[in-house]
Amino acid sequence: MNILVTNDDGINSKGIFDLVTELKKLGHVTVVAPDGQRSACGHALTIENALRVKKFYKNDEFFGYAVNGMPSDCVKLALSEILDTKPDIVVSGINHGQNTSQNIFYSGTAAAASEGMLAGIPSMAVSVVSFDTQYDCRPAAIYAAELAAKLPGLGLPKDTFLNMNIPSLPYNEIKGTEITQLSNATWKDAYEKRRDPFGREYYWFSGEYISADEESGSDDWALNQGKISVSPIRINFTNSEFADKLKSTLLELSTL
Amino acid sequence: MNILVTNDDGINSKGIFDLVTELKKLGHVTVVAPDGQRSACGHALTIENALRVKKFYKNDEFFGYAVNGMPSDCVKLALSEILDTKPDIVVSGINHGQNTSQNIFYSGTAAAASEGMLAGIPSMAVSVVSFDTQYDCRPAAIYAAELAAKLPGLGLPKDTFLNMNIPSLPYNEIKGTEITQLSNATWKDAYEKRRDPFGREYYWFSGEYISADEESGSDDWALNQGKISVSPIRINFTNSEFADKLKSTLLELSTL
Repeated sequence: MNILVTNDDGINSKGIFDLVTELKKLGHVTVVAPDGQRSACGHALTIENALRVKKFYKNDEFFGYAVNGMPSDCVKLALSEILDTKPDIVVSGINHGQNTSQNIFYSGTAAAASEGMLAGIPSMAVSVVSFDTQYDCRPAAIYAAELAAKLPGLGLPKDTFLNMNIPSLPYNEIKGTEITQLSNATWKDAYEKRRDPFGREYYWFSGEYISADEESGSDDWALNQGKISVSPIRINFTNSEFADKLKSTLLELSTL
Repeated sequence: MNILVTNDDGINSKGIFDLVTELKKLGHVTVVAPDGQRSACGHALTIENALRVKKFYKNDEFFGYAVNGMPSDCVKLALSEILDTKPDIVVSGINHGQNTSQNIFYSGTAAAASEGMLAGIPSMAVSVVSFDTQYDCRPAAIYAAELAAKLPGLGLPKDTFLNMNIPSLPYNEIKGTEITQLSNATWKDAYEKRRDPFGREYYWFSGEYISADEESGSDDWALNQGKISVSPIRINFTNSEFADKLKSTLLELSTL
């Protein structure tokens, strides 16, 4: 199996290293990942600037290609320029911090998986519920690799990728896996207004994640039970039902 | 009506100026937009850096607030810090360049509208089919304002915003409006490999938009007919049908 791996925490993060270590047991792994932290970059693409690709070594061994761009750039560059053959799967992660609910909008980890999906490749995103950059992702990586091995055979629809979140528990304390939907948790946005050393104002995002973890069957609910959450994420933007309603409403507009 | 306006081409672009000129006829307009070009930034959010908000003047008049961030930052900052009351609608644009089909993944214009939607506000994105930064957006702005005026009364579902694309035709040559779905057009990705003045390699995205404009009822099809396209964009990430199928498949996994 040929596996393309990327992430949004950067090629030097612990999550991607632990993931790659496990995935190498499944087949040939190529890592193409950002050269640094790109959290919350969403599906951003670099089109106004030059992209550099540099070989990245870890523990004196070649580990992969570091790109001065976004996770989506990494997938596109890998498929267009770096890989000789189309990979069998794309795995994005392991992200330090859960990607549940509305976080899918902002997550570079999820965007990279959707970029793989757009290219017609079975793809998945993986995250652990810990923002600690030194968190030991080896237990999570074992579970992630197990799902990755099954990915080509799952019959994923063309518009769907998998989003896996893993609790921050020791390997043996994980209570199982749930197939989930995204929870209705939201961000309560807030900004801290501060002053720089020159007395000028600036803002820093300090939003709070408001969980709605009561909903049985949601990703946040599963994680709170100590279970792994796997959500099939469909990206199908057209609201066809509402389109029908809109047709009659908009006919009333004069010039439109 | 209180209207929040943003874009991804930057607060000094022609598209946002022409749009605001028309929207001022409908009510009170507040502009909070990036301080420069942010094309293809997707739903990126600035969380690792300070955000600055500066008053921006155009033709010696106060025009709005310029932010050194992304379109989604602008909407969040406006709602959290700049506006005293929740706006009645959010309008993002007018983008120089069409946002049809897969472009919704990457578009900062569309992401800003979806950010308004996430905040529970009827929201729309507007684009013209011309990448010319000097393109006269006044005709398009008239149509955009006409839709904006109707936006609060359309009964938009909570998970849906409108994506409007307007052909680059004189006002009177536009052939009407179609309620559309996103076309199946795709990006054929490619990168140009170049060398900098020091002989070092770099890549530049040079992808090609492969239209599938035969599909009747799609956004690209409407534009090719000289018509305005309005697509209701739903963001509902969970693929519930496939979840049911996945439940039985994943039960076979040993440890999962």
